[in-house]
Amino acid sequence: MEQTRIWTAGLVVIGDEILSGRTQDKNVSQIAAWLNVQGIQLAEARVVGDRTEAIVEAVGALRAAYDYCFTTGGIGPTHDDITVDAIAELLGVPVVHHPDAMAVLERYYAGRGGMNEARARMARVPEGAELIPNRVSGAPGIRVGNLFIMAGVPHITAGMLDTLTGQLEGGRPVVSKSIGCWVAESEVADLLRSTEKAFEGVAIGSYPFFREGRVGANFVVRSPDEALVDACLAHLTRELETAGREVAQGGI
Amino acid sequence: MEQTRIWTAGLVVIGDEILSGRTQDKNVSQIAAWLNVQGIQLAEARVVGDRTEAIVEAVGALRAAYDYCFTTGGIGPTHDDITVDAIAELLGVPVVHHPDAMAVLERYYAGRGGMNEARARMARVPEGAELIPNRVSGAPGIRVGNLFIMAGVPHITAGMLDTLTGQLEGGRPVVSKSIGCWVAESEVADLLRSTEKAFEGVAIGSYPFFREGRVGANFVVRSPDEALVDACLAHLTRELETAGREVAQGGI
Repeated sequence: MEQTRIWTAGLVVIGDEILSGRTQDKNVSQIAAWLNVQGIQLAEARVVGDRTEAIVEAVGALRAAYDYCFTTGGIGPTHDDITVDAIAELLGVPVVHHPDAMAVLERYYAGRGGMNEARARMARVPEGAELIPNRVSGAPGIRVGNLFIMAGVPHITAGMLDTLTGQLEGGRPVVSKSIGCWVAESEVADLLRSTEKAFEGVAIGSYPFFREGRVGANFVVRSPDEALVDACLAHLTRELETAGREVAQGGI
Repeated sequence: MEQTRIWTAGLVVIGDEILSGRTQDKNVSQIAAWLNVQGIQLAEARVVGDRTEAIVEAVGALRAAYDYCFTTGGIGPTHDDITVDAIAELLGVPVVHHPDAMAVLERYYAGRGGMNEARARMARVPEGAELIPNRVSGAPGIRVGNLFIMAGVPHITAGMLDTLTGQLEGGRPVVSKSIGCWVAESEVADLLRSTEKAFEGVAIGSYPFFREGRVGANFVVRSPDEALVDACLAHLTRELETAGREVAQGGI
């Protein structure tokens, strides 16, 4: 298998509403799936509250550890939106009003009551930052070096990711294929372990479920090398069928 | 307001399936909501993959930083279930088969094909650990000091949390109440900021939405002091109504 550099990213989800249980986060899975397509692996995610110190620590750690660092949340107009200030503090730069962001917001709010101080807050960026266009609701995301500051509302983040598609250097996308089987994973643990060992470079995940009164599991094989994934799945399928199990390609 | 010690917890969600985007995590919100009822605040969550080093680092950091540390995932029977080994390494203790867990699993698998080596893996614990009963599927959770090792499958975790209810020392539960208003949050940002300042000890969150072609927002007031929450909400309501806004108690 051709060796390629593996590109990695970290994600910091910012918001008391996630840590209080009020809001179900959707950005980890959304950004993870998008990164896969860019050939970048989400290596770690952290959820922190609306506190400067917590944001500085988490973003500082993930930005240093991985090729890219994303944040979601805390870039709106209200007092609990402190992501830009925290990241400027981390980077040791002042917060400035970005002129292009001001222009975007002035156009957006022209028919919606006009600009005010709170709305102008959404044009604030760490000095030296570029904007990430927001096709949904005016206020842009922000890019500073390897750091991408995105909205908390998932469909706004989706729009920002869309404008970033194909812009970030990555490696080969990870290919992921599944088979499903009505079997207790504890009955096939040895087979999974030996198969993963035999096909170097694949990772096999085992995800049990209980449905219609029966236990089953999906086995997910992942690698950037699609031919290897297919060979590994074919081996697993053959072994399971030899043991008298029915296998569903694509998973159950 | 009576001063009480604030109890905190960290959570490490373990699993490649979360970081690949394949599986939507439900444990952060589930455990956060449960902790609130125990009077414990979820202060931080991290999501890491099935790698020993990543688990050791995250659990080590959160266990040291907060009163309690929870983990979910990686305690099943297959090769990718390495949480127990990683935590034993972190604690510097050997992994042993817990006799009570062996007994539980033997009973559970008696009518399901009997024990095997993979199933016995689920009885492995860091030496000195206690068990957390699993009412759903046999294999127990594990408690070692301030560390709670739980299942990845949310409804199994729910059963484990249920058996822990009332067992952990906490403070006064945080009371959280909402009002909703068809207003752009950027129009009321000043009011929110001054209200949070006026009612010391409350945190106000502002959560905008876009529905039926109109913008609105829910404002969530949180504090362990219910009387303070009510007073703060009454103030916000009065101010919004004075400005000609209709307010929905409980949120929109």
